[in-house]
Amino acid sequence: MTTLSRDPERHAKRMARKQELMRARIANAQNEQGLLLVLTGPGKGKSSSGFGMLARALGHGMKTGVVQFIKGAFQTGEEAFFRQQVGVDYHVMGEGYTWETKSLERDIAAAEAAWKITQSMLRDPTYEFILLDELNIALRYNYLDLEQVLDDIHNRPSHQHVIVTGRNAPSALVELADTVTEMTVVKHAFKDQGIKAQKGIEL
Amino acid sequence: MTTLSRDPERHAKRMARKQELMRARIANAQNEQGLLLVLTGPGKGKSSSGFGMLARALGHGMKTGVVQFIKGAFQTGEEAFFRQQVGVDYHVMGEGYTWETKSLERDIAAAEAAWKITQSMLRDPTYEFILLDELNIALRYNYLDLEQVLDDIHNRPSHQHVIVTGRNAPSALVELADTVTEMTVVKHAFKDQGIKAQKGIEL
Repeated sequence: MTTLSRDPERHAKRMARKQELMRARIANAQNEQGLLLVLTGPGKGKSSSGFGMLARALGHGMKTGVVQFIKGAFQTGEEAFFRQQVGVDYHVMGEGYTWETKSLERDIAAAEAAWKITQSMLRDPTYEFILLDELNIALRYNYLDLEQVLDDIHNRPSHQHVIVTGRNAPSALVELADTVTEMTVVKHAFKDQGIKAQKGIEL
Repeated sequence: MTTLSRDPERHAKRMARKQELMRARIANAQNEQGLLLVLTGPGKGKSSSGFGMLARALGHGMKTGVVQFIKGAFQTGEEAFFRQQVGVDYHVMGEGYTWETKSLERDIAAAEAAWKITQSMLRDPTYEFILLDELNIALRYNYLDLEQVLDDIHNRPSHQHVIVTGRNAPSALVELADTVTEMTVVKHAFKDQGIKAQKGIEL
């Protein structure tokens, strides 16, 4: 992970390869193919949508991986649920770290360790579905090298589905993605009135 | 189920009761309370988000119910997955029906039968989380009496979460909801190029 800036040459190379892949995909439109989906925007439902797709993938007997790029050790409902399922390789960023130091270096180290786990999945064709929950947050804070992340996602086995969630998806990721959904807030009645997050809905 | 038109008196009554409930909720902002969430719009991720929240609820050990208001007998990944979980009461509209007749009467009968199951959940305080997948579609086609649906949802036990998914949520449902998210399509690269729906993502 050397640079945080955009690299025009790698970008051009990726886009050229993407064009090739798209041609091949269109030629084989009825074949199975791995999609890159991005779920972003300020509305509710990004992560839960990713976890719903995970449930679908498990329903089809796929081998799946989850890496949650969220800081902290709080146990969420989805973590409790999916950790006990067969066919899910579940990781949370910061496992083995304490977050008490509030150190940028430790944040970066934790994100890079989580990305190493992700890389091993992205290079392993036995994984058919990988959920990178809140990866956009880690990218937003420059905890990870965007170019490296894009390359690793792009060079994955062709049948592998990858779902990325989180607000503020980087434009280069949107460009690379097959499908992008933006969740917008139409109404959030209690948001400004101190209603706490509800179990089963937000946690 | 007597009328399909909007009833101003029932609407005014519901809104008055909602105002009361909102005041009580704000006064007890830190208590557990059942939310009505609507996930709508043309983008991907509405149903999968509902199923992700279902996974969360199960992770918290909640008793849950699912009614899918989709026509037909095709087995989806989420159905295969969640039917085998403990704590889920899973129903699909049209169970016991054949869809070969393409008859409006049979569609309405199937929707009404599915709503009867929903009503029994909405009246049973042991259910903590109810997912009404694609209910908006059944409402859109006037298979169900909107006023009845709104009344039943509104009069549920106060701690019960209800999630409604589907395009074109009726405005009266949006009005009644606590939180509404619209999924918008930013990009759907292969939609118009004949790429088939992919297992684990769309099915």
